[in-house]
Amino acid sequence: MLPPLEDIKTDDERFMREALKEAIKAFQAKEVPVGAVIVKDGQIIARGYNQVELLKDATAHAEILAITAAENVVENWRLKGCTLYCTLEPCAMCAGAIQLSRLDAIVWGAPDIRLGANGSWVDLFSQKHPIHTVEVRSGVLREWCQAPLKQFFQKRRVENAERN
Amino acid sequence: MLPPLEDIKTDDERFMREALKEAIKAFQAKEVPVGAVIVKDGQIIARGYNQVELLKDATAHAEILAITAAENVVENWRLKGCTLYCTLEPCAMCAGAIQLSRLDAIVWGAPDIRLGANGSWVDLFSQKHPIHTVEVRSGVLREWCQAPLKQFFQKRRVENAERN
Repeated sequence: MLPPLEDIKTDDERFMREALKEAIKAFQAKEVPVGAVIVKDGQIIARGYNQVELLKDATAHAEILAITAAENVVENWRLKGCTLYCTLEPCAMCAGAIQLSRLDAIVWGAPDIRLGANGSWVDLFSQKHPIHTVEVRSGVLREWCQAPLKQFFQKRRVENAERN
Repeated sequence: MLPPLEDIKTDDERFMREALKEAIKAFQAKEVPVGAVIVKDGQIIARGYNQVELLKDATAHAEILAITAAENVVENWRLKGCTLYCTLEPCAMCAGAIQLSRLDAIVWGAPDIRLGANGSWVDLFSQKHPIHTVEVRSGVLREWCQAPLKQFFQKRRVENAERN
């Protein structure tokens, strides 16, 4: 499920591969497989994977868990100098949290055609934010990031069909 | 800081008055004074007030804390049959969380002219959400909800001016 290391050319790909490791943890825990890491000064300072079912918490998306973990590490709610890598285009909640926590940049992998808030459903990054502008790069390791999601939803459809 | 009980005519006003009590707790804790309560079957099941500074967490808005508290009470991330009362128009993060947690309805008091995601900055409730539609009522006890915010920011301006 991970791209071979020899195919990884850029820092963005290297850190997205780490976010993918988190997504795979979510997959193994039967959660929608999305993962995230937060990087500061070239080092990963926080990790998170989707835990909505485990925590019975609709806000427990990979990005939110990584943001709160990073805030703990830097002991500040302002994540200045930090970049968030996420395997999926952030939803509106996560996009809002990314802007509120003053992240410098986000890098995401696969589009979320239903809920994505960077162009798929709405675009909260293209219109000027009143407080803070976040740099965005997208489509990094896109196919790799999509693969566990496709597999997860395919499996769920089969299980639902068998149940009915 | 609270409207007299004899002025409270509707259930929406009654529950917004409870959300205002939470906003006053935030004010007393030197946080931006926003409060929220969540109501199910006519009973308050969860409360929250803004704790961004105390928790050093940009995601610790009143609405998010109330939502996670309510999820704990009902032991489910789906807040079916629940209404969230909040003294301030939700931001994009909170609007996203409100939709993800499947709240039936939200009722808010004062507009947030900078960050509000129900018409002030963006409007995440007017466009069709791909998964869940939330009923919205706004402007309940508006002046009462605005008052602690005005007082808070006025105080902060004075303190900042004295510091410079």
